[in-house]
Amino acid sequence: MQHWPRRIAIVGVGLLGASVAKSLRESFGELHVTAVVRDPRKGEVLVENRVADVFTHSVAVASEAADVVVIATPVDRIADFVMQAAVASKPDCLVTDVGSTKRGIVDAVAMDALAAKKFVAAHPIAGSEKTGAEHSCADLFRGKVTVLTPSDQTLPELLSRAEAFWQATGSRTVVMSPADHDLHLASVSHVPHLASSAVAKLVCPESADLVGSGWLDITRVAAGDPAMWLAICQENRVAIENQLACLIDSIDDCRRMLKDHDDAGLLRWLEEAKTIRDQTKPSTLD
Amino acid sequence: MQHWPRRIAIVGVGLLGASVAKSLRESFGELHVTAVVRDPRKGEVLVENRVADVFTHSVAVASEAADVVVIATPVDRIADFVMQAAVASKPDCLVTDVGSTKRGIVDAVAMDALAAKKFVAAHPIAGSEKTGAEHSCADLFRGKVTVLTPSDQTLPELLSRAEAFWQATGSRTVVMSPADHDLHLASVSHVPHLASSAVAKLVCPESADLVGSGWLDITRVAAGDPAMWLAICQENRVAIENQLACLIDSIDDCRRMLKDHDDAGLLRWLEEAKTIRDQTKPSTLD
Repeated sequence: MQHWPRRIAIVGVGLLGASVAKSLRESFGELHVTAVVRDPRKGEVLVENRVADVFTHSVAVASEAADVVVIATPVDRIADFVMQAAVASKPDCLVTDVGSTKRGIVDAVAMDALAAKKFVAAHPIAGSEKTGAEHSCADLFRGKVTVLTPSDQTLPELLSRAEAFWQATGSRTVVMSPADHDLHLASVSHVPHLASSAVAKLVCPESADLVGSGWLDITRVAAGDPAMWLAICQENRVAIENQLACLIDSIDDCRRMLKDHDDAGLLRWLEEAKTIRDQTKPSTLD
Repeated sequence: MQHWPRRIAIVGVGLLGASVAKSLRESFGELHVTAVVRDPRKGEVLVENRVADVFTHSVAVASEAADVVVIATPVDRIADFVMQAAVASKPDCLVTDVGSTKRGIVDAVAMDALAAKKFVAAHPIAGSEKTGAEHSCADLFRGKVTVLTPSDQTLPELLSRAEAFWQATGSRTVVMSPADHDLHLASVSHVPHLASSAVAKLVCPESADLVGSGWLDITRVAAGDPAMWLAICQENRVAIENQLACLIDSIDDCRRMLKDHDDAGLLRWLEEAKTIRDQTKPSTLD
């Protein structure tokens, strides 16, 4: 399928949506990008900066001629927009997304036979505490993993196209079930984010002057958008709750060993963490 | 007090000790540095790289002619070395340290009248998960805070000299009690470190491929030396235990709000963390 896709629509053009457009423009010289935005001034800026060719506020209008529609809104809006795009688009249109949670979205879309046939859920594991198209870049996905979470209704041919699409952004694709995705992401992303926020909240005005580079690293993501993270919590409530309980147990083990002067146990606990950190490297294509 | 110090001794020449030597060499052209190291091969490398002029394995020998002795060993060895340096050094010698905990060290040194008279405890808030003199640099302390924690026995004149010494490394000095230091550092450094380790330990082999930049930031310090962090835990046991309990309570609040669908409360919790993170900036001299 040469020269595919020729036309894409991006619904919600923030950091991720705009980075998808920029990376695909580098992969495919002639790509027509329609941005779906509520605020026309934002659309004008996107066209000025050549992120998009045209903009509209209508998902239906943007989807009509699109080969691929990417829903890049906060997770609690994604399923609705997938269904809107599915109704309006051509029969062979691929609808995909960038949401950090997958099971709720895939389950909701599964209720709509047409949408389920066109949709391949995706989660490019890339981002920043900085939001907005102004921080987007063509290589945001380069060397990163994009998880694809097809449903029982996803045809293999459509999954292949979704893999090709996300690989064209520069990312490496892996395929797993929506439930596995949500469980794993709770442990490596969602709960770490909440832990980062809890660490930030330990600071009082008297100690704020004493933070070092370690604190700044640990709490960097706590500067992320609270509304976006609330939506993630809502969408992945059970897995996050379970992983939060694991985290609490682990910290309480540490506290108990400290209290009981169990120095050998505490050293082992610290060594296990170091081993995991040392062995866990960011995925790259290189 | 022009041309002071002319001669310094560094006991334990890792990341911090070597960075003290390098930064002071930049501030004072003619500075004689004696490195105290156990391994003569390490001493040779330090002299080759002009970090030190000479090396010895003896704290007493190194301290004899020194204007300032800096103890830069793990925290559980510092008080002993302070007392050894105090016995061997000139009456007007300043003995200082770089330990991340202060109360245990200051209390131990207070038992020794001679050592207490010469010692001003210090904690330059700078470092890295990377250890060893090979990672040292002259500007490690530039723009950072060094906390000085004098005891009741510290003479004001000696405290002033300690302030001048640490300011010559490029850092800004603040003065507080050892107990306040340990309490604050438990909340902004020691417990965040343990939280980082706990987050690292949530990863399983199946999820290791899915970590993103947020996880890498949060867990960076968990790669630090476990033995060094065990010593910090031992030295600041009570404050760390209390702050761990606060952290557990905060994460459990979050878990409970998630479970109870208290979305307004969860949003407020996330917003408070963001506000603190946004307002807490690293200290700089600029």
